[in-house]
Amino acid sequence: MKVAFQGEPGAFSEQAARIMYPEAAPEPCASMQVVFESVTGHVTARGVIPIENSLFGSVHINYDLLRMHNIQITGELMLRIRHCLMARPGTEIQDIVRVLSHPQALGQCQDYLRRHLSHAEPVPAYDTAGAAKLVARASESGAAAIAPRHAAKKYGLRILAEGIESHAQNYTRFLALALPIKAATLPPDDRAYKTSIAFALRSNVPGALFKSLAVFALRELDLHKIESRPLVGSPGKYLFYLDVAGSRAEPTVQRALGHLEEIAAELRVLGSYPVGRVWDDEVRPEGAWA
Amino acid sequence: MKVAFQGEPGAFSEQAARIMYPEAAPEPCASMQVVFESVTGHVTARGVIPIENSLFGSVHINYDLLRMHNIQITGELMLRIRHCLMARPGTEIQDIVRVLSHPQALGQCQDYLRRHLSHAEPVPAYDTAGAAKLVARASESGAAAIAPRHAAKKYGLRILAEGIESHAQNYTRFLALALPIKAATLPPDDRAYKTSIAFALRSNVPGALFKSLAVFALRELDLHKIESRPLVGSPGKYLFYLDVAGSRAEPTVQRALGHLEEIAAELRVLGSYPVGRVWDDEVRPEGAWA
Repeated sequence: MKVAFQGEPGAFSEQAARIMYPEAAPEPCASMQVVFESVTGHVTARGVIPIENSLFGSVHINYDLLRMHNIQITGELMLRIRHCLMARPGTEIQDIVRVLSHPQALGQCQDYLRRHLSHAEPVPAYDTAGAAKLVARASESGAAAIAPRHAAKKYGLRILAEGIESHAQNYTRFLALALPIKAATLPPDDRAYKTSIAFALRSNVPGALFKSLAVFALRELDLHKIESRPLVGSPGKYLFYLDVAGSRAEPTVQRALGHLEEIAAELRVLGSYPVGRVWDDEVRPEGAWA
Repeated sequence: MKVAFQGEPGAFSEQAARIMYPEAAPEPCASMQVVFESVTGHVTARGVIPIENSLFGSVHINYDLLRMHNIQITGELMLRIRHCLMARPGTEIQDIVRVLSHPQALGQCQDYLRRHLSHAEPVPAYDTAGAAKLVARASESGAAAIAPRHAAKKYGLRILAEGIESHAQNYTRFLALALPIKAATLPPDDRAYKTSIAFALRSNVPGALFKSLAVFALRELDLHKIESRPLVGSPGKYLFYLDVAGSRAEPTVQRALGHLEEIAAELRVLGSYPVGRVWDDEVRPEGAWA
């Protein structure tokens, strides 16, 4: 089985794909659009995309792609983002004159850089795995990258320091995508499920959001996520993203969604899937893939 | 008066600062943290920060900084993000061999690049204004940047094409920051106000979010934004960001916030301010600053 992800080999998205599908072969794609097309076009059986980060928020363009494609969410994973300092074997910390990484990663590791590498120049790069690739191929020595742990293995670099980010609460939530299956055939197993939906409200209906949430609250269905997204240029018009506890194979969830359809101008069920694991390399046993 | 912003001169944040404070001198800062510190430290009277983008979501780290600092939101602006292709005078489209920009901007202009610049190599750069600066200083010719319109003026570049992004709904919402003033002294003028708050709920209280929203719905106060942010590692614990119509100088809003305090584990009012303008360079009269 193949799993499409966006980015360079060694990117966090590839790690997410491998954790979610340990038996599958990850396929790098140039853009998120290509990840979706490789699933709808039967090129890969699954796609894995980042949907939100605990520091940088929801990836709205991926919600747009979810709404535009005939595709379903089939799983999720919360991946702890840990940054490592890596360089070519033989390069020691005192030899480093340049540190390459994505600007966000450089920012998150600012305290470490100030304390240990104040003599080195931070150099912004396209992405973290891309920075590791550049360091591996650089003609001069003295370059290091801040990148995911397993980018080091990928590009033959040596890890000099691990977990060098200042902010501890850095997680990215990934979604697995597949072609839709019929709602009635959803497996009612004993795991906890959640259902992701996107809906729009008729404008100028006072308290419409409150009514929308009542369809869940009155049925005692817990919400895992709620987010409004203003449609700029259409004052008062919003899209809402909502994750509700339960599978749409359950009658209560079905009735709540039917009720919401009476209120919403547009409703799209993006998928029902088991509540995902939180994955942190540091708390995995030795020998686990990541 | 001075206004702090994060980024290179010519960045969209500088444009936002100039539109919101036409008489003030914008001060570039190395990080968002420095923008906040320059306001709390009385170095600048105001700061301007991006808080959400219509394609890329909320900037959670700026919400964290808002909660951590004794600072108030005093205004907002929705800025239409338009990308321009620019190069040194004398360089024509057919001469271009490299196009520098932030990866997000390169992605948004992919269709244009494919149609008009398929012979040129896209080169990712730190930020859009930084790309313009690099092009202005490059030793070889044949380089172009995708950057905000007024970065061209700043770095002596010539605009070859304007509004080259594919996705029309690209807006960034900026907030203006200032030291807090006493709530009672808020000017009750005739403009429409909104109030931004952040709150946390006691975990394991069923329907707590629904009750929280009831304090506004039952008083017929409209919501402009609602967003949950899971605290990963604390299952079931969430932070909520909410914008409600009205100023906290109004008794109804005050009562709603008092009521919310009974339900929430933590409540922070981030500011009351006039509802911001939507600014689009293309619909401004000639001669306007931007």
